[in-house]
Amino acid sequence: MSDTGLAPRRGRGRRQARDGSPGQNPHLERPYITRAIPTYDILGDEALDRIDATADRIMAEIGIEFRDDPDTVEMFRRAGGEVTQLDPARWTIKFAPGLIREILKSAPAQFTQHARNPARSVEIGGDNVVFAPSYGSPFVMDLDKGRRYGTLGDFQNFVKLGQASPWLHHSGGTVCEPTDIPVNKRHLDMVYAHMRYSDRPFLGSITAPERAADSVEMCRVLFGADYVDRNCVIMGNFNTTSPLVIDGVTSQGIREYARAGQGSIHLPFLLGGAVSPLTMAGSVAQCLAESMVSCAIAQLERPGAPVVLASFLSSMSLRSGSPTFGTAEPALGSLVYGQLARRLNLPLRCAGNFSTSKLPDAQAMQQSMMSMMSAIHCGANFLLHSAGFLDGLLSMSYEKFMLDLDLCGALHAYLDGVAVNEDTLGFDALAEQGPGEHLFSTQHTMRHYKTAYYDSALDDNQPWETWDEQGAVDMASRANTRWKAQLAAYEMPPMDVAVDEALKDFVARRKASMEDAWY
Amino acid sequence: MSDTGLAPRRGRGRRQARDGSPGQNPHLERPYITRAIPTYDILGDEALDRIDATADRIMAEIGIEFRDDPDTVEMFRRAGGEVTQLDPARWTIKFAPGLIREILKSAPAQFTQHARNPARSVEIGGDNVVFAPSYGSPFVMDLDKGRRYGTLGDFQNFVKLGQASPWLHHSGGTVCEPTDIPVNKRHLDMVYAHMRYSDRPFLGSITAPERAADSVEMCRVLFGADYVDRNCVIMGNFNTTSPLVIDGVTSQGIREYARAGQGSIHLPFLLGGAVSPLTMAGSVAQCLAESMVSCAIAQLERPGAPVVLASFLSSMSLRSGSPTFGTAEPALGSLVYGQLARRLNLPLRCAGNFSTSKLPDAQAMQQSMMSMMSAIHCGANFLLHSAGFLDGLLSMSYEKFMLDLDLCGALHAYLDGVAVNEDTLGFDALAEQGPGEHLFSTQHTMRHYKTAYYDSALDDNQPWETWDEQGAVDMASRANTRWKAQLAAYEMPPMDVAVDEALKDFVARRKASMEDAWY
Repeated sequence: MSDTGLAPRRGRGRRQARDGSPGQNPHLERPYITRAIPTYDILGDEALDRIDATADRIMAEIGIEFRDDPDTVEMFRRAGGEVTQLDPARWTIKFAPGLIREILKSAPAQFTQHARNPARSVEIGGDNVVFAPSYGSPFVMDLDKGRRYGTLGDFQNFVKLGQASPWLHHSGGTVCEPTDIPVNKRHLDMVYAHMRYSDRPFLGSITAPERAADSVEMCRVLFGADYVDRNCVIMGNFNTTSPLVIDGVTSQGIREYARAGQGSIHLPFLLGGAVSPLTMAGSVAQCLAESMVSCAIAQLERPGAPVVLASFLSSMSLRSGSPTFGTAEPALGSLVYGQLARRLNLPLRCAGNFSTSKLPDAQAMQQSMMSMMSAIHCGANFLLHSAGFLDGLLSMSYEKFMLDLDLCGALHAYLDGVAVNEDTLGFDALAEQGPGEHLFSTQHTMRHYKTAYYDSALDDNQPWETWDEQGAVDMASRANTRWKAQLAAYEMPPMDVAVDEALKDFVARRKASMEDAWY
Repeated sequence: MSDTGLAPRRGRGRRQARDGSPGQNPHLERPYITRAIPTYDILGDEALDRIDATADRIMAEIGIEFRDDPDTVEMFRRAGGEVTQLDPARWTIKFAPGLIREILKSAPAQFTQHARNPARSVEIGGDNVVFAPSYGSPFVMDLDKGRRYGTLGDFQNFVKLGQASPWLHHSGGTVCEPTDIPVNKRHLDMVYAHMRYSDRPFLGSITAPERAADSVEMCRVLFGADYVDRNCVIMGNFNTTSPLVIDGVTSQGIREYARAGQGSIHLPFLLGGAVSPLTMAGSVAQCLAESMVSCAIAQLERPGAPVVLASFLSSMSLRSGSPTFGTAEPALGSLVYGQLARRLNLPLRCAGNFSTSKLPDAQAMQQSMMSMMSAIHCGANFLLHSAGFLDGLLSMSYEKFMLDLDLCGALHAYLDGVAVNEDTLGFDALAEQGPGEHLFSTQHTMRHYKTAYYDSALDDNQPWETWDEQGAVDMASRANTRWKAQLAAYEMPPMDVAVDEALKDFVARRKASMEDAWY
């Protein structure tokens, strides 16, 4: 390991020179981005006030339904929630205006999620931007083998491809479902894969409280129990059951992470017209209400536990009723949601490289860009689904993963904004030769030519004739070539052998302790 | 003609009902867009001041070189420019800080470009956004026949496809080069095609002063001479010869349009590192200086003539020196340029659906979106290159044209922003059924389902299985099918027979008056 904590590697790290192959931008590499451009605020205060008031009204007059978790209900009752029991396992809780916002005041505006490689820890919140891969697809696809159920091998591949790229900052969570592993044991292999094949931060399991506990326990093996109690080293990504329901597995899981001082992301997954109002103002108000109440569970369990306000806004095809991702209206919704998150002073997860396309084609990147740029502009801090998303989140695509990574690289340059100083204003470059003369050989050009523009690994910018002679290859095919090369060149980050053995031992013991379950 | 001035047609016009086929959004159709979202301002005043000051310094200390047009030089000398003659046909003019800005005060902040169909006139400037097709490609391409030189037939096809779409507002100019027509006669066929096959506004010729004059003269035939003198009915799109040169054909052409009271667009085409500084702050400062001086030619010729400040910012591949379009850094530059245009209170042309891809693939739309969204966010008023741009502007693509049109449709919804009112906040939709219940059948959903989301004509949002059964078609192939269908269904807008005959007669007489020239 070098003194940066990174394994020395071709093209990795600021000290490495570029070797002339495409896609190297050592000057842009960093463990996470701190944005140098402002957020894009599209609504004025009065409109935001109305959305905030509607969220408060939803919490106060309709309330949130809780299921199968009397402890969480009791916690809210003690905090002042107005509880109505619907049946033995269902309660509605109404929250007086201001109650939830008061509870959320204990949540940090920004926190560190620590990586096992300290040089790769990330800051979540404030002006920081963290890219993480897509999450939760049962299928994987590539141009060679098409679409099929994901396996642990695929899962490991995506972790390795992420690790090999400088443009992700976080290893993610369920990068695909390893459907060849029993449902009740998957989380052990997934968490181990993130720990072993990546040295970046990652997400743990949320599908059952005991799997959340296992995820945290494995962190105690990796980081040490004291360290884990004092630092956020893992997060869980929790979904509400929209509209306006939080089920017991979710609320118990949230409390599991919070109790351990670990992070949690609080995500309403809103298909407009299906589980939220079709109109964006309404979807955003509902999203805010659900996410705030979900965040409040963590704050009541352990005040100060890191939480991330979140949204996943989508639309639908009004002809078929199919959900649509990466469309214009949810992009606007995300911009508004960013403004509301800043009012709450909470870190934000929002949008990503969404698409309903079934191929890494024009639709895939048109939709991805619409969604991703909204995340970039709205001030999102944690961008899950930054790479691989296709097929309405049903499939993780190897080629789309590479396309998205290349875009994430470009977004490093974008978020750096425009530097304005004597040097960048370049008056001397123009004065050196005067009107009508090319600037190729000016001192200014010589000084900046290696760093002025992001060098894409996948764009073809050659003349048409050259491109045609070389086989007229499209971008998806170039991505296909690249993921195979990247996977072949993958180098595993070093890990202390005793720690690795202890992790393997933990996984083996937990697996041996239960029968396989496939549901 | 209906009373809106539009020919009645399936799916065209607000009064038409949707018939269930994709891509119909009658509620979003309009002759041009007035943005309901703010601009995205990424730099503060101090940084903008420095760029403005650098532009002033370029004009004052380096100056702009003029060629082959002593009249323009004399005009600037009388206005206070400091002229140095370099040789019999070249002059450098330096402008004291503030001089050009003073001259530009006579330019309108907003103006109407009138269409022959009054319902299709557009407002250029202020909060208005006008989409026009791509401009200037010598080649055309489609998936069937690949890349070849453009012909007048192709030109007419693109005018027809634009006319058939509700998502362009303007017929554009050289939608492709009709290379089968002599260079000195092309403009006549191009202007006639815009006039006959479209009823929207359009651009005229700028390749020679007499061709500019012919373009304006044809407008006098179409609109009447008095009308043309009182109204802007045509514009010319003029390029500076960067860095810092304005050639005589350009300055004479600008004056030709201005003298007739017609509009002109003033475009530096900046390849960073080649003809402008690599760094965006410098490129933007140079762009501003060049475009301002070019606009000033029109103001001196006829104070109050409509002018459009413009920029075309691009980058280069730092490995090959090839120009690159649709990348992150020029997108940032466009955002800055928008801020500077607002300081000048001038209408702005900026960016578009740029790409260097040679196919309508993922690269094409990723790059297009990066560039197009910067135009949308920076407050650009006139978006040339809104449809068809591929191959670094060398090729106009039939399929890309359709992809871009579909995006332009979505951008109508995007620019409408998020309405926040009692109805859109949708509290009743959630209250109607309460937690855990789908909203499909709520009154709110019934009220909004036809208009809540843009209905794409080309996205495939079906389940993977359906898409697979239907042939697993990619977006480019869907676009291929669609342009053929649209062209087959094209209906020519009505035109007074006498006017049409007079236009044909003018074209025939002008063609007969000169030998063919092919350069």
